Amino acid sequence: MKGHVAVIGAGLVGSGWAIVFARAGEQVRVYDANAVIRDDFLTLVSRQLLDLKSYDLVDDPSVILARITVCVTLDDAVCGAYFVQESVFEEVAVKTEISIAIGQLLNDDAIVGSSTSGIPSSAFTSDVKNRERFLVTHPVNPPYLVPIVEVVPAPWTTQDAVDRAFTFMEEVGQSPILVRREVEGFILNRLQGALLREAWDLFAEGYASADDIDKTVSEGLGLRWSFMGPFETIDLNAPGGVGDYAERLGPLYHAIQKSRKNPQPWSAELISGVDEERRSALPLGKLPERCNWRDQRLMALAAHKAGQTS
Amino acid sequence: MKGHVAVIGAGLVGSGWAIVFARAGEQVRVYDANAVIRDDFLTLVSRQLLDLKSYDLVDDPSVILARITVCVTLDDAVCGAYFVQESVFEEVAVKTEISIAIGQLLNDDAIVGSSTSGIPSSAFTSDVKNRERFLVTHPVNPPYLVPIVEVVPAPWTTQDAVDRAFTFMEEVGQSPILVRREVEGFILNRLQGALLREAWDLFAEGYASADDIDKTVSEGLGLRWSFMGPFETIDLNAPGGVGDYAERLGPLYHAIQKSRKNPQPWSAELISGVDEERRSALPLGKLPERCNWRDQRLMALAAHKAGQTS
Repeated sequence: MKGHVAVIGAGLVGSGWAIVFARAGEQVRVYDANAVIRDDFLTLVSRQLLDLKSYDLVDDPSVILARITVCVTLDDAVCGAYFVQESVFEEVAVKTEISIAIGQLLNDDAIVGSSTSGIPSSAFTSDVKNRERFLVTHPVNPPYLVPIVEVVPAPWTTQDAVDRAFTFMEEVGQSPILVRREVEGFILNRLQGALLREAWDLFAEGYASADDIDKTVSEGLGLRWSFMGPFETIDLNAPGGVGDYAERLGPLYHAIQKSRKNPQPWSAELISGVDEERRSALPLGKLPERCNWRDQRLMALAAHKAGQTS
Repeated sequence: MKGHVAVIGAGLVGSGWAIVFARAGEQVRVYDANAVIRDDFLTLVSRQLLDLKSYDLVDDPSVILARITVCVTLDDAVCGAYFVQESVFEEVAVKTEISIAIGQLLNDDAIVGSSTSGIPSSAFTSDVKNRERFLVTHPVNPPYLVPIVEVVPAPWTTQDAVDRAFTFMEEVGQSPILVRREVEGFILNRLQGALLREAWDLFAEGYASADDIDKTVSEGLGLRWSFMGPFETIDLNAPGGVGDYAERLGPLYHAIQKSRKNPQPWSAELISGVDEERRSALPLGKLPERCNWRDQRLMALAAHKAGQTS
């Protein structure tokens, strides 16, 4: 018997994962230390499922919901699980404590993936029992709409655990990538950080408004990037492929980068400049409404992408 | 009488512009020094229009095509035009020569935008008659699917010319942004270059394959970025907006950037590493076919975006 999937930490990230797993047909057992979060969990999930249904992104929400059980103890969620997705608060002490507890309850061959977006798993699993089956499986929120998962082993994670985590993520419909060894920010946030750094600098130097910098992405670069990555993009932008492109444009890009040798922290002044522009475009009180718009757009985009043949 | 729009340089970029202008109802007069390019032009445009029609992105292709006239002399295209889009070969000498010729034929209040992706217009318009009405209007290819246009004045371009170029680009359905003063690579290629730089480094250091780095964008970061920019993305990713986000994650991003202090040129070894992986994923002979796939995906995405209410 294959067993079930455990979701530990039932906030926004945990609820996203529960939907991913249950949508793929898995039995899901969810635990959170906070009783209020536990009590609200199925209502939250069921609202998200109805939203997905309106874009035809799931079949029967009630069938999916019926696969999810909320547990009152950690044991009840973890015992018998063959995959555990941990999404507790992003702090080393909190991650360490729950990982120690999970490690002691773990089935013989169960794998534990952490949702951490920034902390390498070696920082909180060194003293954990069965630590060779712990690793990072970092999603983007919400994972049922954005399929990327960064699989990042700790130095002591076995190859077998990596392989099985990777295969499992594919089986539940995600797009895992392998980060071969730990690196601060993994791949996704490093790429985002590099683009943001240039964006902040251009804003600081007065070359363009934050809104115009945003448009350069949302009406320009981001269109291709929603279905192919940066390397494939440049590979298709020269008759001889990426080598040809690099020969033509490498010097321009190097000149650009040379002007950015000394990265500064995002300064308070800089942040308040962008914040001012953003708040005048979108008052803080309208942020939740705009987040809802974003989620609707992500759903529409997911439906669009699902309809493309390749 | 408003006059027509002139398209100077009738290659891939010029043909894209002709479609943008004619689709918006403008009369378009096209010139290229090369007779073969002139002779093939309407066939090329008409094929592109039929493609667009298949995605419902244009109304009647023949009506649009009828608005386009190919001219045998530069005079015939430029005289009487109120906007001139120049898309000749990307080289200072070539741009200078055509700009001088255009400047002498220019109507009293006509504006000239150059499609250059990297050369500031001050590098080729300093000795041009009417240079105060020359600037850069940099598109992404193909402009009828990717609406961003970078409007970049030279130091001598008048505010009036900037304003009118900006308004004109909006009128023909593009999304112009203002680059307030000249900077190498403008905004779009600087952002792309920053992300590419980190991508090359991650590949070089063996953290991930080029394909996995690509997936991080195409199945992750790029989804949001296809409808909102990097600042709005982080603004919506913290309850208190961008300032709140920067406080939480600024230190992580700064740590990432500190590890990238000394930008190196894209080395031959590095390029051949990525090239090898790309060629094993996609042999060079299949590149044109994949470009066609990309264009179909861009069209489908444009149709999808046009169907979204906000």
